[in-house]
Amino acid sequence: MKIVVIGATGTVGKAVVEALRDRNEIIKVGSKSGDHQVDIKDAGSIRKLFEKTGRFDALVSTAGKVYFVDFAALTEKEVQVGLRDKLMGQVNLVLIGRDFINDNGSFTLTSGVLTHDPIRFGACASLVNGALEAFVRAAAIELPRGLRINVVSPGVLVESLPTYGDYFRGHEAVPAKRVGSAYLKAVEGRLTGQILSVL
Amino acid sequence: MKIVVIGATGTVGKAVVEALRDRNEIIKVGSKSGDHQVDIKDAGSIRKLFEKTGRFDALVSTAGKVYFVDFAALTEKEVQVGLRDKLMGQVNLVLIGRDFINDNGSFTLTSGVLTHDPIRFGACASLVNGALEAFVRAAAIELPRGLRINVVSPGVLVESLPTYGDYFRGHEAVPAKRVGSAYLKAVEGRLTGQILSVL
Repeated sequence: MKIVVIGATGTVGKAVVEALRDRNEIIKVGSKSGDHQVDIKDAGSIRKLFEKTGRFDALVSTAGKVYFVDFAALTEKEVQVGLRDKLMGQVNLVLIGRDFINDNGSFTLTSGVLTHDPIRFGACASLVNGALEAFVRAAAIELPRGLRINVVSPGVLVESLPTYGDYFRGHEAVPAKRVGSAYLKAVEGRLTGQILSVL
Repeated sequence: MKIVVIGATGTVGKAVVEALRDRNEIIKVGSKSGDHQVDIKDAGSIRKLFEKTGRFDALVSTAGKVYFVDFAALTEKEVQVGLRDKLMGQVNLVLIGRDFINDNGSFTLTSGVLTHDPIRFGACASLVNGALEAFVRAAAIELPRGLRINVVSPGVLVESLPTYGDYFRGHEAVPAKRVGSAYLKAVEGRLTGQILSVL
């Protein structure tokens, strides 16, 4: 399969590439690195990306920014960052990617544990993750041509503890390699409309 | 208690008012009707509303628009309507309402069954509902001063079947009166961070 991985050079993205690369052709995409670049906040940039990659069999997105901010200081501005980037960015990868994906192809997005297990400072992330998971369940029942869509919802990564550990006190961290396996299951299996939690 | 009900003249809003009015002072708010008007898409309009209502003990929102559209025709434009209106509108009622709500007050928002039980044409609604439910779970753990937040997630209403019945084939409809009781439970009880499903 020809697989486009958005966020391929991030911690999760590297694990995805590692899990998929033996049997597939991987197109690595980053915001600044990789074979191609994309700004997922910009629908035009997404369309240009797919014009460069050409048709593909699977798209994996591990990309998307959200603000972590004390709820007391939270305003619409910080919420909008997550809506435009991690949420609408990934939704647009699907909506625009439909024009470039082959029959029976798959989209695999990324949410995270905060949908159901909130932490302090995490309201924007929870909101965005909850939106992505419900979108995936709904999109799955309407996608044509045998197309599939799933979302991987990882807990905090072992590899991210130095940066994010203080936010996730008491959360059991998961190794990126285990998270990579969930994307492999989504891409090479036949599931659709599923939230693949890795906890 | 002094309770601000946004969307008070809608089908759900009327049931909310009915459930709460015996023991409380109700301020009815609509987009065009009610004691006051608000455009929840506009943060400025929300702030002006609360300057008119003055401080309150509870806010209930049953307001918010989303597009129902065939997934094949879905673009960012239709998704954005739901993000700006039902999602960010209700989130802003909380973020701005914090400046006007009394200690131990409560916010009660509205999502819907499509978070977990999607229908054709419903991807925007599912996305927005999922976002609201995750936001409420997260916001609840950070709200100060004994403030609470919950969301009521109703199935399709018996009263809405003439309009929406064709979208919800096979869904068991719920009478608005039962839905009203869930808001009563949220406002007069002490729950927080809960999704109150009425199915």
